[in-house]
Amino acid sequence: MVFILKPKISQDKIDDFIRGWEEKGFSAVLSIGTERTAVCLIGNTTQIDPDDIVRARSDIVVSGKQITERYKAVNRAVNENGTVIDVGGVKIGEGYFPVISGPCSVESEEQVLAVARSIKTSGAKLLRGGAFKPRTSPYDFQGMQAEGLELLSLAKRETGLPIVSEIMNQSQIELFEDVDIVQIGARNMQNFDLLKAVGNLKKPVLLKRGLANTIEELLMSAEYIAASGNPNVILCERGIRTFESMTRNTLDLSAVILLKQKSHLPVIADPSHAAGIRSLVEPLAKAIMAVGADGIMIETHNDPANALCDGAQSLDLEQFDALMRELKKRAELEGKVI
Amino acid sequence: MVFILKPKISQDKIDDFIRGWEEKGFSAVLSIGTERTAVCLIGNTTQIDPDDIVRARSDIVVSGKQITERYKAVNRAVNENGTVIDVGGVKIGEGYFPVISGPCSVESEEQVLAVARSIKTSGAKLLRGGAFKPRTSPYDFQGMQAEGLELLSLAKRETGLPIVSEIMNQSQIELFEDVDIVQIGARNMQNFDLLKAVGNLKKPVLLKRGLANTIEELLMSAEYIAASGNPNVILCERGIRTFESMTRNTLDLSAVILLKQKSHLPVIADPSHAAGIRSLVEPLAKAIMAVGADGIMIETHNDPANALCDGAQSLDLEQFDALMRELKKRAELEGKVI
Amino acid sequence: MVFILKPKISQDKIDDFIRGWEEKGFSAVLSIGTERTAVCLIGNTTQIDPDDIVRARSDIVVSGKQITERYKAVNRAVNENGTVIDVGGVKIGEGYFPVISGPCSVESEEQVLAVARSIKTSGAKLLRGGAFKPRTSPYDFQGMQAEGLELLSLAKRETGLPIVSEIMNQSQIELFEDVDIVQIGARNMQNFDLLKAVGNLKKPVLLKRGLANTIEELLMSAEYIAASGNPNVILCERGIRTFESMTRNTLDLSAVILLKQKSHLPVIADPSHAAGIRSLVEPLAKAIMAVGADGIMIETHNDPANALCDGAQSLDLEQFDALMRELKKRAELEGKVI
Amino acid sequence: MVFILKPKISQDKIDDFIRGWEEKGFSAVLSIGTERTAVCLIGNTTQIDPDDIVRARSDIVVSGKQITERYKAVNRAVNENGTVIDVGGVKIGEGYFPVISGPCSVESEEQVLAVARSIKTSGAKLLRGGAFKPRTSPYDFQGMQAEGLELLSLAKRETGLPIVSEIMNQSQIELFEDVDIVQIGARNMQNFDLLKAVGNLKKPVLLKRGLANTIEELLMSAEYIAASGNPNVILCERGIRTFESMTRNTLDLSAVILLKQKSHLPVIADPSHAAGIRSLVEPLAKAIMAVGADGIMIETHNDPANALCDGAQSLDLEQFDALMRELKKRAELEGKVI
Repeated sequence: MVFILKPKISQDKIDDFIRGWEEKGFSAVLSIGTERTAVCLIGNTTQIDPDDIVRARSDIVVSGKQITERYKAVNRAVNENGTVIDVGGVKIGEGYFPVISGPCSVESEEQVLAVARSIKTSGAKLLRGGAFKPRTSPYDFQGMQAEGLELLSLAKRETGLPIVSEIMNQSQIELFEDVDIVQIGARNMQNFDLLKAVGNLKKPVLLKRGLANTIEELLMSAEYIAASGNPNVILCERGIRTFESMTRNTLDLSAVILLKQKSHLPVIADPSHAAGIRSLVEPLAKAIMAVGADGIMIETHNDPANALCDGAQSLDLEQFDALMRELKKRAELEGKVI
Repeated sequence: MVFILKPKISQDKIDDFIRGWEEKGFSAVLSIGTERTAVCLIGNTTQIDPDDIVRARSDIVVSGKQITERYKAVNRAVNENGTVIDVGGVKIGEGYFPVISGPCSVESEEQVLAVARSIKTSGAKLLRGGAFKPRTSPYDFQGMQAEGLELLSLAKRETGLPIVSEIMNQSQIELFEDVDIVQIGARNMQNFDLLKAVGNLKKPVLLKRGLANTIEELLMSAEYIAASGNPNVILCERGIRTFESMTRNTLDLSAVILLKQKSHLPVIADPSHAAGIRSLVEPLAKAIMAVGADGIMIETHNDPANALCDGAQSLDLEQFDALMRELKKRAELEGKVI
Repeated sequence: MVFILKPKISQDKIDDFIRGWEEKGFSAVLSIGTERTAVCLIGNTTQIDPDDIVRARSDIVVSGKQITERYKAVNRAVNENGTVIDVGGVKIGEGYFPVISGPCSVESEEQVLAVARSIKTSGAKLLRGGAFKPRTSPYDFQGMQAEGLELLSLAKRETGLPIVSEIMNQSQIELFEDVDIVQIGARNMQNFDLLKAVGNLKKPVLLKRGLANTIEELLMSAEYIAASGNPNVILCERGIRTFESMTRNTLDLSAVILLKQKSHLPVIADPSHAAGIRSLVEPLAKAIMAVGADGIMIETHNDPANALCDGAQSLDLEQFDALMRELKKRAELEGKVI
Repeated sequence: MVFILKPKISQDKIDDFIRGWEEKGFSAVLSIGTERTAVCLIGNTTQIDPDDIVRARSDIVVSGKQITERYKAVNRAVNENGTVIDVGGVKIGEGYFPVISGPCSVESEEQVLAVARSIKTSGAKLLRGGAFKPRTSPYDFQGMQAEGLELLSLAKRETGLPIVSEIMNQSQIELFEDVDIVQIGARNMQNFDLLKAVGNLKKPVLLKRGLANTIEELLMSAEYIAASGNPNVILCERGIRTFESMTRNTLDLSAVILLKQKSHLPVIADPSHAAGIRSLVEPLAKAIMAVGADGIMIETHNDPANALCDGAQSLDLEQFDALMRELKKRAELEGKVI
């Protein structure tokens, strides 16, 4: 069950309201969004009529609703309008289509600055870059690590672009202080301890769908973060593993639609990892906008042929610029601020 | 290896050219498109330099090219511009985006006429309807069969819309005389005898991707049809089977792009069967147009709640009309005649 | 609902019983096994108490049972002991473990005779051989066709082994007169017209699971055959298509167990197609026996290195003999007659 | 490239040998097994002839071999006989078939002792129990955590059975001091930082295959552990995610065979998680032994109906005892010490 609270209720009153439920044996998840505060009850609520509660506690509760789905705090019922997250002035959520771009791996100061400046000029709103890289082989390049994060911070100071980077375990959290959006990669989507750890942060978390995880499992992983106290989760579809071998993964655009129907969280997609092939990125990006996603994440490199990681799927700076022009043409028609 | 022939070469000369290759132990597939005629050699052509042949047979050959892929006659190399197929005046191929619509099953004269008239007004260019229905259970409705085809013909006469219907085995071919496009369903994509049989027809074949078939296997099945003499094949992505259970299938839009890169055949997509959920059809349809498909196939019913088959994924006539308006808005931007 | 009839009821009485149900709007499937005759009612039977019918028609009915599953005639409820099919004296079903072996393709008289004689000596009970071959490419060897069937018949006369061969479409049925078990291949598992056609035969049908078909879909395809009048269906697990690319398919041994729990039909498995790698065949064969299958189908060739089809997964004659010795050692422990 | 060293070479000499390679730009992974010590070179070794090295360094090197696979230290070439790991006197590896059993979750002292005593009597060699539980929902029981590990230790002291439990993140390592085998669960198979962390331990690691991970990826994850210095890895096949929904996962027994062909590590399988259904566990267990696995892991509970986790797939104590009797019957035939 979810209760939407009146605006400007004092924290004391909210705590009191929650305590009341806890005394009856429920747990409660408090979700404080910019536009509304919600309290989700966890437990067997089938005997409770939400309208009774709205009547009895009209001093604090605006509306109430049963939620039959297993995901509560991230359920669409908590915010029917969809949540818009603000990241250093960049909006992510319904009505917006920010483009996140940058290299798979941060490789050098020169590289990250060249890419950051160029994508900013082209219209990207956030800079992504991998400092800690999850690689299938222990003998492959594992990222520049802490130094990579420092180079991203440098690029942020130079360009003003908020930065996104992937965290691989909770001991790294301090290093991510200057990172604006902490990314949980596909392989860590069900690393529940890491989810709880980023759930203790205040900053937005970009949660990628696992290679073999269902839409419901992705929502349950987002619920882990929200239930730990951080409602600022951005979901990302990045392709699932199927029998088809001509692409790296199979981009599941139906998932984007369903995630938005079932959750109030922003939903973006990553065509680069989904396809694994450069020539597919632009047409997939157009489809991602057309299907109704709230943004996109694209790998771009100043020299893809010599990239240390995922060069085959990275756009060069000109290709990225051309793509941005195509996306801008379509944004107005789709009712999106790009 | 493929040779593109000069225009207006006499059939005798072509036969002669082919015979020459056959005497050297190759087989040859002749592909007569509206814009070009091509001869594909099958066999070990690694020792042949196509330029030698172009020089030696400049009376007949315009250009030649090695094809390393296993699919030859449907290879993009045979027609770099992409093939446009004409179906009773309706064009399917690059630059066009015809919408094929109609009910899953033909159920009655009233139903099929109501749907046909309405979708025509909304802007559909072809009418689809199932007469022979492949159903998982022998106890489910198996279609109106021959009578269903007659009702489709009636609708065609009334509205002028060319008609598309699924064939289930080669003994039915005579019944399909008035059908403009013969559809091979997903479950029959590797029914090779049926592929050969429709390869002996002149009329276009709409070939749907199998639930668990790779992009390359789809191209090889199209090659069966082309190698049997019928180059008029339209490929259709309709979702593949994956672990995700919230949708009926997973629509693979990367496949649409790759099929167009690798083959000259028109490529359309079917969001209704892919999703299995009505509310996903419109956003997926927009994505299908944006990704560069050459058309779309959508299930529409005058009374989805009482449809004998696949009601949950069928649009009603108003929803279809609304979708068409959305697609028309986007067609110009995408450079497509809808 | 299924009714098990008393032994030796006259056909007239049975027809009468069925007619009674049809007059009430049900359809009925009559299933005549060697050990029992059953009548399955199709339709909404929820209002009928089977015990009422047993009481009222004790002259003809032994027992009755509701079947909630969609598969009726192949449901375990129809024959709790499991059906044993007799093929020219060879038993397939619970308590038996016949080995079916032979080449992927019949290639010559010499080949098929060499293989047949050798596998018989080793202990195989049936000879398999492909005459009509479903191949992904139209340019690959398509089988010896009718001539291949004649060579199989020759081998049958020479060795006494009953023969198994794959049919690709219903127009070939007459050619299969001397074939003891008609095989439906994985790609045709949902070729419903072909299922109905072999449902009109009396001879056993070996139905292979499709690459992407669920256990329930396999049972529903068997139901097509049974509902058309042929209860002699043998189910075959042969691997499903997954993301794993090191094997050709993923053998699903849980399916063997579940098929036997849910259906009375014999269930065998094919490790050769599942694995696609010779060195996996023997260990998988042992696992297939241990898991409780009713038999096995193994590709064997007198000269695998030069096989026209699937050489990489075929055992040579010595390897097959060694495998048979291993299986025989285990048969007694498993309570199976091999 | 791998070099097998002579027995009883001094650590100084080995360090020296490795330093020599590092000076030439290679990295080296030292793998110290009970039976042999190996040095794997990482880097481009194509120009090196292993026989040259064997000749030049016959004081230290017994044999050398190029390894083209990406996995080096876990490659079969490192130990053609297969590695046998000793866990408190229990052997895991070729020739053995230890049974690991116990509850999904440790729930109470009473429960874990009851299960431990009973399975020991039945013949299990190791006790498993979950203390930290990865659960899809944050609202589900997350395990008894540190207290659960203490109860496992208690059961170990009472019964003498070495214990196996799952670790979820590297900060928990200290808590696992008394745990004999640290388990990495399927969802953490590519949690590379955790793999590196357990790679710094000396105790054996049981590494489960991820739901959507290939055989090669599993080997690469094992390589992470080995490359970090811990060669004592036990691989575990536990079912992969496919389209089939009647079982929880699809057990891939071909993977067991291939893993043993490609790696020297012991390979076990877990039928409980693979099937998710109690009645499948015994037949799958027999198949796992027959296919050649080096052991098995089975969930057992003293009261499955009231288990806090995975009750539907847990055997009760009697069922486990019956299964053990079946496995013992087969062990001798399979040449395994159970």
